[in-house]
Amino acid sequence: MKNNLFEIRHSAEHVLMQAMRNLGYKFHMAMGPATDDGFYFDFELLEGQVLEDDFPKIESEMKKIIKQDLKISQHEVTVDKAREMFKDNPYKQEWIDEIVLQKAPITIYWTGEPGQKDSFVDLCKGPHVKSTGQIGTIKLLSIAGAYWRGSEKNKMLTRIYGTAFETEKELNEHLEEREKQLANDHRILGKKLDLFAFSDLVGKGFVMYTPKGTIIKNELKNALVKMSKKYGVQEVNIPHLAKIDLYEKSGHAQKFANELFKVTNHYDEEFVLKPVNCPHHTQIYASKPRSYRDLPIRYIESTQQHRDEKPGAIGGLNRTRSFEIDDGHTFCTPDQIKQEVINTIKIVEEFYTGLGMWGKHWVSLSFSDPNTPEKYIGEPSDWQKAEKMLQEISDELNLNAKVMIGEAALYGPKIDFMLKDTQGNDRQLATVQVDFAMPKRFELTYIDENGKEKTPVMMHRAILGSYGRFIANLLENTGGAFPTWLSPVQVEVIVISEKSYDYAKKVELKLNELDIRVELDLSNETMGNKIRKAGEQKIPYMLIIGEKEAEAKTVSIRTRNGEQKNNIDLKDFTSILKTNIMAKSLEVNI
Amino acid sequence: MKNNLFEIRHSAEHVLMQAMRNLGYKFHMAMGPATDDGFYFDFELLEGQVLEDDFPKIESEMKKIIKQDLKISQHEVTVDKAREMFKDNPYKQEWIDEIVLQKAPITIYWTGEPGQKDSFVDLCKGPHVKSTGQIGTIKLLSIAGAYWRGSEKNKMLTRIYGTAFETEKELNEHLEEREKQLANDHRILGKKLDLFAFSDLVGKGFVMYTPKGTIIKNELKNALVKMSKKYGVQEVNIPHLAKIDLYEKSGHAQKFANELFKVTNHYDEEFVLKPVNCPHHTQIYASKPRSYRDLPIRYIESTQQHRDEKPGAIGGLNRTRSFEIDDGHTFCTPDQIKQEVINTIKIVEEFYTGLGMWGKHWVSLSFSDPNTPEKYIGEPSDWQKAEKMLQEISDELNLNAKVMIGEAALYGPKIDFMLKDTQGNDRQLATVQVDFAMPKRFELTYIDENGKEKTPVMMHRAILGSYGRFIANLLENTGGAFPTWLSPVQVEVIVISEKSYDYAKKVELKLNELDIRVELDLSNETMGNKIRKAGEQKIPYMLIIGEKEAEAKTVSIRTRNGEQKNNIDLKDFTSILKTNIMAKSLEVNI
Repeated sequence: MKNNLFEIRHSAEHVLMQAMRNLGYKFHMAMGPATDDGFYFDFELLEGQVLEDDFPKIESEMKKIIKQDLKISQHEVTVDKAREMFKDNPYKQEWIDEIVLQKAPITIYWTGEPGQKDSFVDLCKGPHVKSTGQIGTIKLLSIAGAYWRGSEKNKMLTRIYGTAFETEKELNEHLEEREKQLANDHRILGKKLDLFAFSDLVGKGFVMYTPKGTIIKNELKNALVKMSKKYGVQEVNIPHLAKIDLYEKSGHAQKFANELFKVTNHYDEEFVLKPVNCPHHTQIYASKPRSYRDLPIRYIESTQQHRDEKPGAIGGLNRTRSFEIDDGHTFCTPDQIKQEVINTIKIVEEFYTGLGMWGKHWVSLSFSDPNTPEKYIGEPSDWQKAEKMLQEISDELNLNAKVMIGEAALYGPKIDFMLKDTQGNDRQLATVQVDFAMPKRFELTYIDENGKEKTPVMMHRAILGSYGRFIANLLENTGGAFPTWLSPVQVEVIVISEKSYDYAKKVELKLNELDIRVELDLSNETMGNKIRKAGEQKIPYMLIIGEKEAEAKTVSIRTRNGEQKNNIDLKDFTSILKTNIMAKSLEVNI
Repeated sequence: MKNNLFEIRHSAEHVLMQAMRNLGYKFHMAMGPATDDGFYFDFELLEGQVLEDDFPKIESEMKKIIKQDLKISQHEVTVDKAREMFKDNPYKQEWIDEIVLQKAPITIYWTGEPGQKDSFVDLCKGPHVKSTGQIGTIKLLSIAGAYWRGSEKNKMLTRIYGTAFETEKELNEHLEEREKQLANDHRILGKKLDLFAFSDLVGKGFVMYTPKGTIIKNELKNALVKMSKKYGVQEVNIPHLAKIDLYEKSGHAQKFANELFKVTNHYDEEFVLKPVNCPHHTQIYASKPRSYRDLPIRYIESTQQHRDEKPGAIGGLNRTRSFEIDDGHTFCTPDQIKQEVINTIKIVEEFYTGLGMWGKHWVSLSFSDPNTPEKYIGEPSDWQKAEKMLQEISDELNLNAKVMIGEAALYGPKIDFMLKDTQGNDRQLATVQVDFAMPKRFELTYIDENGKEKTPVMMHRAILGSYGRFIANLLENTGGAFPTWLSPVQVEVIVISEKSYDYAKKVELKLNELDIRVELDLSNETMGNKIRKAGEQKIPYMLIIGEKEAEAKTVSIRTRNGEQKNNIDLKDFTSILKTNIMAKSLEVNI
């Protein structure tokens, strides 16, 4: 952080506490550090409430304190003195315990004349600016809940986020940047583009896809199924419930104990909502005898899973309690597993290339941690074999993978394809997992060439992972400007005046017949407004139709990038468009 | 029933009881009538068990009694005498109560000399044959559970099914017919054709679709979506859970109280698994402001629903606890509802025509029962309007509908399309329902031409209803011989000898490229066996490939109906096939 921004922000946080005290809020101060882009203050509110609507009032009091240019001074005190000064505040007492343990000196900071009634004091190790006048300019940003010391076992406190800069100019630049980032948040974009919705009646963490969001989901699904079918996969379809017995056998009941949704009924039976799909798929495999001639058997399915996420962890599409994944399970002989893994990686490459995401990823060889064997099921020798094979594949395909110890699944090692989201967090997208354990647990068998009963190997795979998480990522990375093949509306037909309505409707019909997703804007708004709106919706192509076009049976084309070509034969346009869609082009061109 | 078959069977049932007594079984007789095709006997077993494996032993004892030609005689007794004779049997005491209430005479039937130790007596109003020798021939068929007097509130008894005929010839004909019917049971066919599976670990009433079953499901779904899109529908996608609040608002919490699966979590929240989809769809509608210009808004979705069916009621695909339906909800103005209903009926006609089922149905105008207003929600005037409109539509479209009082839905009247299954039961398939109530409950609105807030009308619709029930019906009606477009395997390539393997693989590849579902049989079996197996799997087309075909680059075609044409150009065959599939032809022809 440049200059003394850290001291400025840390001091601004003290001024925030002082201002709230001056305004009569009753609270226990808990903690409040400076951060990379501002500061926050955690406190337990003892009565009443504090809302973002109160920010102007609090900011105004803070600015008054800054204007007074009060001196900020550090003082060392004894343990007893500190305990006495903050005797009513359990959080400060905990801090003092900790400082005593560390055998560090105890310091307090006074803002204003020490000991005076109007002055303010806090237990703090600093550093701070010399006086409030050096703080510059401040802004409060938002209110949230936060657990004391970040642990959900502790009390939920109130947190106020704010920031401070030396100059107004710097503050304004920062706020603009923040605005932009917020606008790019998939929750904001999803609402603006009408892709998904939540409802208080349905509940937190349960997403509903609107028609436009469903188009994106279905296009992704169809593309995946088509690519996968080249490698011999078969679609299957399972229910969402099972007896707990299924997951006790698989080992998931233990692993997901805290995330299982239990289902009760009227006949003293107990079920769980499936948290994973592999156990059901083993039961399809087990539904008839299998021969080595039948293998590999490759099941895929896009289906919803349910996990009881913590209410505080739920947010947008990234963490929901119900989420659809493109899941797949391959049953094969040990000799076949390598080729199956390689084929799956080929699908991953084709799929991510079609979205311009291949090459932006990194690959994790997610291996077991020998120090925590209790986290895994299966034979150590099988694990070694599988990890060695994944390393070989990574080498052969030049995946440039990093070995990540401790990142393996319950039943085997994985190859994970990771991508950073706009917040810089690593998100797992595709995954390929080798599993020697589950087929044994479910006593799956096949008859080999010699008529002997053998246990197949299982491969778990997902290409895009959770649809919600994938769409969130895609939204934030593209700002909603999807490739044409994925766009909910591919063509907006914009009519200049009523005289061309008939022709415009014919154009709409023609595009419809060609399975192109088209929207016709017959509203009374100006052409400029219609173009602006279509642009905001990131619709790849606009066809502008006036009397000239109607007469010549042509269209004028404008792309969302602003490229324009006038009086083009409709057939020429549809041919460009169909080619673009078929090729899953990343560009919008004419 | 011809001749005295009723008396024969009723008497056979008495002989069954006598035989079981002779063999030492301890039981209370409950009841046992003759039926259209045999008889059954319900009893409470007091110790041990009775299994179908015991049938030979019991039948042999029955035949002994028949051979003895024991006299069967009717006797009237007093209430007191009857109470005394059956004093240990609570079921007979209940029968006596009832006969007393009806002021009917009480009769008993003796088999053998009355009062003798070896003879047998039962409370019974007859009629019977004169002596056991007149019974002819008997056969025990199966064992099942049955509630006393059919009510689940009562004790579960054991039921033995059997039949009796005058002659062995008649019995054998009947058994053959029964065998055929059983083989046509969708559960048997589904296993034979490998379409779906159940698992004890997953639980009763939860079906899993195998790859072949999933193809049928997806083909049905795709056909429906395609037909529906011509009428402007949009696909949406919802989660499977919701807070109970959603169903309290809709009224379903009350209506489905006994069928709701409750879901609990680790944070003291309570959810239910959706028993219907309409409430979720109202929440997508409510996720943004709507104008009259946006209407009608037509959501469709194929999604699983969950209902806690009684364990005893669960069976095959007809009654499952998790079932996918093709659900749809249209929101529109009151003026638009009639056209929307008509359009939906057009989709129903197109869909059922494509399966050869149109015309085999009958139409029910399912109206409310004015005597049970507590079964419905909404305004009486809205109900009258809606029922009048459905009657008008039925008249205009010549649907030849029957008015069925009391068959309406919770929220409005319906037009139901009914079909008899192979057991002769009426099954509801398509349904179109008008609903003025739910939009009001969910406070749905749109802005009309004059800027005023109005409540939309809602239409509920399903074209095929439950996929499971539909597929069961289709299976039993076709014996698994689906039209080509719906067949999991459309072409079986049968190779005569290894010399033609390469060419056969080329043929397979070519068909694959054309998106034709093909299976290549390279096993060592004889050609005759391969053809027989493909026939059993009801595969529409077989291509027989030998050296002659390989050399001439042709194929020999054989249909599942036995039609055959040799040395046909592959291109000519694929063109016939593609036309057949595109046209959704009901015939398999060359």
